[in-house]
Amino acid sequence: MCLIDQPKLPHLFQIQRLDHHTQTANAISTMIVRGAGAIGATGAAGMAQAFLEAPEEGFDQYIEKAAHTLRNTRPTAQNLFYGIQKVLSAAKDASSKKEAQAKAVAAAQAVADEDANACRQIGIFGAEVIQSGMNISTHCNAGWLAFVDWGSAISPIYTAHRAGKEIFVFVDETRPRGQGARLTAWELAQENVPHAVIADNATGHYIKEGNIDMVIVGADRIAMNGDVANKIGTYTSALAAKAKGIPFYVAAPTATIDPNCPAGSAIPIEERDGDEVRYTWGWSDAGDFIRVRTVPEQSPARNPAFDVTPADLITGIITEKGIVSPHDISTVAPV
Amino acid sequence: MCLIDQPKLPHLFQIQRLDHHTQTANAISTMIVRGAGAIGATGAAGMAQAFLEAPEEGFDQYIEKAAHTLRNTRPTAQNLFYGIQKVLSAAKDASSKKEAQAKAVAAAQAVADEDANACRQIGIFGAEVIQSGMNISTHCNAGWLAFVDWGSAISPIYTAHRAGKEIFVFVDETRPRGQGARLTAWELAQENVPHAVIADNATGHYIKEGNIDMVIVGADRIAMNGDVANKIGTYTSALAAKAKGIPFYVAAPTATIDPNCPAGSAIPIEERDGDEVRYTWGWSDAGDFIRVRTVPEQSPARNPAFDVTPADLITGIITEKGIVSPHDISTVAPV
Repeated sequence: MCLIDQPKLPHLFQIQRLDHHTQTANAISTMIVRGAGAIGATGAAGMAQAFLEAPEEGFDQYIEKAAHTLRNTRPTAQNLFYGIQKVLSAAKDASSKKEAQAKAVAAAQAVADEDANACRQIGIFGAEVIQSGMNISTHCNAGWLAFVDWGSAISPIYTAHRAGKEIFVFVDETRPRGQGARLTAWELAQENVPHAVIADNATGHYIKEGNIDMVIVGADRIAMNGDVANKIGTYTSALAAKAKGIPFYVAAPTATIDPNCPAGSAIPIEERDGDEVRYTWGWSDAGDFIRVRTVPEQSPARNPAFDVTPADLITGIITEKGIVSPHDISTVAPV
Repeated sequence: MCLIDQPKLPHLFQIQRLDHHTQTANAISTMIVRGAGAIGATGAAGMAQAFLEAPEEGFDQYIEKAAHTLRNTRPTAQNLFYGIQKVLSAAKDASSKKEAQAKAVAAAQAVADEDANACRQIGIFGAEVIQSGMNISTHCNAGWLAFVDWGSAISPIYTAHRAGKEIFVFVDETRPRGQGARLTAWELAQENVPHAVIADNATGHYIKEGNIDMVIVGADRIAMNGDVANKIGTYTSALAAKAKGIPFYVAAPTATIDPNCPAGSAIPIEERDGDEVRYTWGWSDAGDFIRVRTVPEQSPARNPAFDVTPADLITGIITEKGIVSPHDISTVAPV
């Protein structure tokens, strides 16, 4: 399997080759691949790899261990568990190793195709609420780099832009990993969508001052009560949108809904290495992709990767089945 | 006049020598010196420099032009205008150039002394609302580096810590210039105050989860209705504090109150160069203090330096005259 090495984007476009499911797991945990749908499709592909690798003897144990390894890469991302489960379920009743392998590979491909189709639909539904002249805020990267294609939050923006609507996007840089500054800005520049990168802490100000008309973000897990886990910083944008009375949309395929999760308080929040906050990667004037330390040597950092936005702050959730009130999200959840 | 070169802290401790009021003005606009009280004292000192430099012929015009130059360095910071005005007023009725110079120098010194005393008082009043065991959030740097001594928001933290109260400080890194990551973290480490640096967008999450008991921030200008301009990102922390029901304090000397400003909407918000967002300065692994670009070459950035927090979100304003409700702030405003 081949993946774009995302932490180096847009500075370097490098392809990583992953020959074994443990390499795939490592690519997910180190964020070589990141983004809800992309993690889901990669998790499914890693699971299919495991089916292809598994020895005749101890086949089931190998699969079980691989599923455990892949599930333990990122604790918050629901699409990961969804993708892995899809492959496991498809292969479950196979009568031979060969059949199990074929079904696993087909299921992994189906997860990817389903994601791409869902994201295209999200774009169509989401573009309906975008009017020409709007200034839109987005957080993190929920574009095609985060999914198999199109993306979730950015898909409506692409669709509206291609339809000729004049829009401007305020891109949160999304500390500490800079998915907005690096990936969303790069995606939008490729599509010639007018945009500006801002510090995450400026979004509330621009909303308050009336410079932003709408917020659209992605999701990493949606609870059955409509609470949404997404990249850290989403919650305060939602608070600011509520205070100003502008719409706050979440865009996500229904695969992101966790049917076993009753409320946001039950979603585990991944805490990542504090060094992601203490060091910033970028392109030096000398042309090297390097890191700089911005925090004193003796000062520790804390680094929660996600937060939970309560359903009451969310105007609607844009899914491939239409725009749904967060309070009705269980009606479109996967069974 | 000599100043610590703050953009290089804590990576390098360098002293900048400023021999002329135009150099002083440049040090303020480039943020070699920054922070409400420090800007006020430096503005006053620059004004005193102008009195010492002014030629016999065209003395008044020279002073007027210098005041204009110094006022135009930072548009939001009230202490700057306060400090400059104090020196101008003190020298106004002097009967000779020599007397004017002496009065200007004395007034500039008085501004600095007044700031240090006010900050010490703020520490004493502010420490009263800090209980042992509290986790406190602060934004930007309102410590002694931002003032002549002690600081505003950090002064109560120092006072409480020295009194033996066990506190932990969540330090917002404060993009894009990193005053929290660089300066507040460094100050707290010097004083052995337990702390962790977090991305600005994590503050709301920690407040929501009950990990933060109180927010204390500084101020760059306070309007007569109690609205407060402070470093960009303050507003969303206030929203999160309100949503959770924890206290949100502003700490500032009364010199930060603008008696001519009726409401926050009248405060001009400085927009700085977008390259401050696009490039991050830090310490490379090779030991150099360099910048890295984190945003694609073709993507622009926007960079508002401050936001306005409405009075209704503020629990109290900690001044050298006591803790005042934002709605009563006009009662302690300078006349």
